[in-house]
Formats: sequence, structure tokens, C-alpha cells
Amino acid sequence: MARRARRRGGVRLSKTVAELLTWERVCRVATVNAAGQPHTVPVCHVVDGGKIYFASAKRAPKTRNLRANPRIAVVVDVYTEAWSGLRGVLVQGTARLLEGGPAFRRARARLYAKFAHYQTTYPLDEADSVIVEITPTHVFSWGLE
Amino acid sequence: MARRARRRGGVRLSKTVAELLTWERVCRVATVNAAGQPHTVPVCHVVDGGKIYFASAKRAPKTRNLRANPRIAVVVDVYTEAWSGLRGVLVQGTARLLEGGPAFRRARARLYAKFAHYQTTYPLDEADSVIVEITPTHVFSWGLE
Repeated sequence: MARRARRRGGVRLSKTVAELLTWERVCRVATVNAAGQPHTVPVCHVVDGGKIYFASAKRAPKTRNLRANPRIAVVVDVYTEAWSGLRGVLVQGTARLLEGGPAFRRARARLYAKFAHYQTTYPLDEADSVIVEITPTHVFSWGLE
Repeated sequence: MARRARRRGGVRLSKTVAELLTWERVCRVATVNAAGQPHTVPVCHVVDGGKIYFASAKRAPKTRNLRANPRIAVVVDVYTEAWSGLRGVLVQGTARLLEGGPAFRRARARLYAKFAHYQTTYPLDEADSVIVEITPTHVFSWGLE
């Protein structure tokens, strides 16, 4: 059964939703440009303190979009051909861009811990990268208890 | 190398892009509501004549969003832990809602052919379902030749 959770100023992630978000390694993030055109790409995310974080290049379209409109949506889902077993979660929220400083470094450490790729091959340099922090405002899940 | 293709009034899908879109069985679609809030969920799509089609419930948020703003984005991507092998395609475009009639039935036949699930278990009834037709306006791909 699909479930909704809403609260102004941030919504708490249920245990099953947080588990899916925490362990899955890819999600798709949607942003909107100033003209109202949506954009969506896969990103690798972490969860920390009920918020979602992912890295983006400073000049990437999604970064540019978020500077114009901080509203964001993220979907984490697991596809299966047995459609009765489909499950996932849509998180809508507000994005804040972390551009260096302690909050950036804390989130980067979380990303490095989950994705060693970053540390070994694709370092997140404060000069070129931002980390996007999502505060959930609406959560909609399916196939999770 | 990432590649871009743009053209007003519809852009042609390259052979490798069309192949990925045609054979992959799930994509994620992003829409925007009247207040500029993005929404994204997984859908099962088909490609026909250079356009992308997927079904939606008449009352679903993405259907409601598309009635307010026909701009849409779809991402088809294949995740791998070997990040140098990541590949995918983002298609941005304009959506038209097919609500019954020959165009609806033609697209439904394509969906039924690719996803037998629809025909056997989740029939697409003209009373409850729409089919969204996407005309691509921008295509951005990565990891495809």
C-alpha cells in the first residue's frame, strides 16, 4: 500500500524508508530550471540525520537549476519484473547547496565512506563541486511496509 | 564522452540512444507542478516513431502536473559500480496526454507488446488511464558511443 507523509519544515523518514534510502546506491534526482523545464539524472547519495546528500559539479545543470529554484525530488526505487513486488520512495524537499566549509566536509566524508570511488578516483574538490543537502518535506512510498 | 543533441520542434534519437531507450524496461520521469515543485517516479516505457510513451493513472500527480505544465524529462540509465562504465540518456521534451482514441490504442498496443503485465494483470482502461507521449526536444547521453 502506498503511504504518504507530509509536514511543513521537514518530515521524518520512517524506518523502512530510511533503510531503503540508506542502502541503495543510486537514485534519480529531479530539478527545474527557471523556465519550468524539469531535468533528471542519476546520482549517488547518502543519508545523514534524516537528510539526503549528493555531490554535483558547480557548473552542472542541476546545480544551476537549484540556484534558481531549490525545490527538488528524489526517487529511490527497485525495479522487478514481478510488478506486485515493486517498491520505492519519492522524497520531495528543499535543497541547500553546500559550497565548502564544515558542512561540506562532513557530507563529503559520508559520501567517501559509502562510495570509495570518490576518494580514490573522483575526488570532491571544494573548488569544483558542491554537495546538495535535501530536507524532506513530502515522502511517498510504495511496496514498503 | 557526453553528447548533446538539440532541435526545436523535436530532436532525432541517435541509434545508440534509441537502442538503450527501446530495450531498457524502466525509466524515471520528472514533471513539475504549478508551484514549480518537481516530482519523479519510475515508469515502464516504449519507444515508437522517435517518441516515448508510458501509461499513467488519470488522477496521478504526474498526470495532473502535465496538464499544468507539459514539459517533461525522462532518464534511462544503467548503474554499475564501475563508474567509468556508467551510461544513460536524459531526454527532455514536451508531453501530450492521449486519452482514448486511435493514438491511445496504438500506444497501448506497444505497451502491451513490451510489458505483458499490462494485458494480463494491469489493463490500461481508457476510463482510468492516460498514455503520455513525449516528443524529445533535448537529448543528453553519457557512456554511449
